[in-house]
Amino acid sequence: MFLRNYWYVCAWSHEIVRKIMPRRILDEPIILYRTEGGAAVALADMCCHRQLPLSFGTLVGDTVQCGYHGFTYDASGQCVRIPGQSQVPANARVRRYPLVERWGFAWVWMGDPAHADESKIPRAHWMSEPGWTAVGDLLPLACRSDLIRDNLLDLSHVTFVHQATIGTTMVAETPVVTEPGEASVRVVRAMKDIEPPPMFVRMGGFTGRVDRWQIIDWTPPANIVIEAKALPTGTNDWSKGVITEVINFITPETPHSCHYFWAQARNFATENMGLSKVLHADVTRTFLEDKDIVEAQETRMRQFPDFETVDARFDSGVAHCRRIVKRLMAEEAAARHA
Amino acid sequence: MFLRNYWYVCAWSHEIVRKIMPRRILDEPIILYRTEGGAAVALADMCCHRQLPLSFGTLVGDTVQCGYHGFTYDASGQCVRIPGQSQVPANARVRRYPLVERWGFAWVWMGDPAHADESKIPRAHWMSEPGWTAVGDLLPLACRSDLIRDNLLDLSHVTFVHQATIGTTMVAETPVVTEPGEASVRVVRAMKDIEPPPMFVRMGGFTGRVDRWQIIDWTPPANIVIEAKALPTGTNDWSKGVITEVINFITPETPHSCHYFWAQARNFATENMGLSKVLHADVTRTFLEDKDIVEAQETRMRQFPDFETVDARFDSGVAHCRRIVKRLMAEEAAARHA
Amino acid sequence: MFLRNYWYVCAWSHEIVRKIMPRRILDEPIILYRTEGGAAVALADMCCHRQLPLSFGTLVGDTVQCGYHGFTYDASGQCVRIPGQSQVPANARVRRYPLVERWGFAWVWMGDPAHADESKIPRAHWMSEPGWTAVGDLLPLACRSDLIRDNLLDLSHVTFVHQATIGTTMVAETPVVTEPGEASVRVVRAMKDIEPPPMFVRMGGFTGRVDRWQIIDWTPPANIVIEAKALPTGTNDWSKGVITEVINFITPETPHSCHYFWAQARNFATENMGLSKVLHADVTRTFLEDKDIVEAQETRMRQFPDFETVDARFDSGVAHCRRIVKRLMAEEAAARHA
Repeated sequence: MFLRNYWYVCAWSHEIVRKIMPRRILDEPIILYRTEGGAAVALADMCCHRQLPLSFGTLVGDTVQCGYHGFTYDASGQCVRIPGQSQVPANARVRRYPLVERWGFAWVWMGDPAHADESKIPRAHWMSEPGWTAVGDLLPLACRSDLIRDNLLDLSHVTFVHQATIGTTMVAETPVVTEPGEASVRVVRAMKDIEPPPMFVRMGGFTGRVDRWQIIDWTPPANIVIEAKALPTGTNDWSKGVITEVINFITPETPHSCHYFWAQARNFATENMGLSKVLHADVTRTFLEDKDIVEAQETRMRQFPDFETVDARFDSGVAHCRRIVKRLMAEEAAARHA
Repeated sequence: MFLRNYWYVCAWSHEIVRKIMPRRILDEPIILYRTEGGAAVALADMCCHRQLPLSFGTLVGDTVQCGYHGFTYDASGQCVRIPGQSQVPANARVRRYPLVERWGFAWVWMGDPAHADESKIPRAHWMSEPGWTAVGDLLPLACRSDLIRDNLLDLSHVTFVHQATIGTTMVAETPVVTEPGEASVRVVRAMKDIEPPPMFVRMGGFTGRVDRWQIIDWTPPANIVIEAKALPTGTNDWSKGVITEVINFITPETPHSCHYFWAQARNFATENMGLSKVLHADVTRTFLEDKDIVEAQETRMRQFPDFETVDARFDSGVAHCRRIVKRLMAEEAAARHA
Repeated sequence: MFLRNYWYVCAWSHEIVRKIMPRRILDEPIILYRTEGGAAVALADMCCHRQLPLSFGTLVGDTVQCGYHGFTYDASGQCVRIPGQSQVPANARVRRYPLVERWGFAWVWMGDPAHADESKIPRAHWMSEPGWTAVGDLLPLACRSDLIRDNLLDLSHVTFVHQATIGTTMVAETPVVTEPGEASVRVVRAMKDIEPPPMFVRMGGFTGRVDRWQIIDWTPPANIVIEAKALPTGTNDWSKGVITEVINFITPETPHSCHYFWAQARNFATENMGLSKVLHADVTRTFLEDKDIVEAQETRMRQFPDFETVDARFDSGVAHCRRIVKRLMAEEAAARHA
């Protein structure tokens, strides 16, 4: 059902503190907390004794004490104390999930820990690079993660859904170029000499027409970075333009819901906190418009799971992405059976 | 599960305006709207591109533009525009349902369009006939449509459920005469020299005893017209009596809910708007009492679907109706397989 | 799914009055009412005619009149009247469940009536014995009944869950002695020379250390009596101590919810109504803490029904109880098939 041998964002780093936080990832309940030494930890959210969620328990130093009978686990998931007895059986343990913090996100590995290779964490370097700043948030969506992935891979929808921020007629009317990779997809839309949409006016102060680009990069399982940029038509001077990197990490919560982590990084007006506030509000508004759409899709897909959809020309990126995911799912399934 | 080759009321005509309205009929989501020329249209409420409900879209002239990527459909269900491309594939379309307006109702055909014969629309001529007036409404019920059908076919329940409006002891105690047809059922109950129930007093101003009749006509799938009338006992003078036609069209919404369209037509005091208000309130109150009953039945039937019920003598109409529906269902199933 | 040939508490006796009360027992809907002569009656909550819950009906003398078409049942469940006809078919009846009142509880027999032997009703004599008084209540729990049974059979949890009332560290640290019977389990925990927990201070006015006992007796299906007592360490004088009998009768409502009937009987300060109020509040608070726990367990057990739990040493009573229940379930299943 889910691709497993990948790093998934389970939280913003700043969400993980000295307090147990529950979160469901790939339909598995986990807890997240930070040790006294500052390390972020992910454990299964279910005591091995009576299945009580450990999120009902207490953090005692670096250990988690179950809120029912006091089984106590260290940060590796091993039970280290059972009240009323001096020995703890070796099988008294809960699953620990590898967890790495990078770019301000906490990445959890839901597959075979032997393959948890940190070098496979997707790049989101703009989050911490000098000369850049970012706003971001977590938006819960009551739909399968595929739907927001497809939404981002085909931006022709901004014409119809996001008139108030980033949509103009020209987006849907401009053809895209799709560059399929072995395990990646790039979709490029170059819009020359067009009216800038409202949010770009707010960012760039444009008074005339612009050249605008959307460069979408997808990598599995559901990492999408969109370079969205514009500059005045006829100039080639990026100092008069704006470049944003819209970072999207989508993590399934259940088969029918997901955690949508997003950030918008920019390399201009990086000290302008007022602009940051405006952009956070603009992007949130934009993505809440998507939320209505994808959640309505989800209800139809649940009733009509076998419906044969009709693709449009601008769906080439989505189609290629689906083929890759299907192949990767088959490969993981084959590996599990082997 | 449902009889399909029938006309079902999907809306009151006045509900269908220049705005997209969603409604679920036989568990299929549809949209209803009116063209600039005034024609009522019923289409499937799901874009063929990404399954978004078209009720999230916009009416543009006589076409419906999907709210996601702008696929645009004409009133026949054919997609006539896909942004960013000049050609539209022939299979880009949504189902159109035949729709006819008559007697103030909009009738939709959920079966094979080839058999959508308008002459099969049930008669409800009192809705528009000179000398008659009517009140009516739509009541949503959280029960399978059979339950309100059975309710109306066996009015002995009014004695126990509707004391405040149309129930008196004599209803349940008076035997009925059932006249079974090939694809229809008539149930007649003649109550002579009885106390009139409260609503009839309000309608007819009776001060003494009355003769009262209930003549129930069912035709498939779930059309029931009840001629409910009374006049002073001992007179044969209908100018001193009241005649009402209670029109009931029941349309399944899901397997466990239905749309109950009702109207009460009368041929007296037709200009009396005050009486119309009172009667609308009286009938609504009466049917809300039924709603409690049938929805409670539904919960038991879902837990005990195979429970063998015990019929009473006054169930002859219900029993005959069920046999006919069973036969018609079998005939439709056979025709589908052939 | 449930043990059936047992007496289950379906209500407090005082809940059953001259009014129809619905309650679900072992997933069967029943009604409870009291006849004019004072006898408590349990019938199936579904009319045999159209499956309407009889709890929508009316008590007429000792009979129940259905709220839909007036089928009327006597206290044996036999239909004695159908409006509009003089004869009532013999199969027009609803199930009557044997019901006995004892110790202030109403006990219903959900199995084969031929085996409804009153002598098998569990003892709770403290509820009515001179020199004793009791507080008690009904707590609805959204979990399978096993979970609150296991909770009561292993009181080591009070250390972690009930610090405000009956929990101290020593409970979980003191080993138990389990005395398994053929169809019973006793678990004894003797805690010598310990700090008394808050509720015991409130009951006994202890100023120093105490000896404290928990003696838990389980019998099937889910009857648990806990003798919880304490007296000042070093004395053997029970006139300075307190003895309570905590009576727990747990009745499945559905596979995933139960009725938890509890009482706390005491043999001291029996006239002190103020203390009774305090104890009712203390025990309620304590059991509401359990409610949070067991309902959270239930959600995990529904998602992970086959999870293999790890037992602790203090689980010997729980383990033995489960083995007995498993054997009794198998015996009932075998008897049904024979």
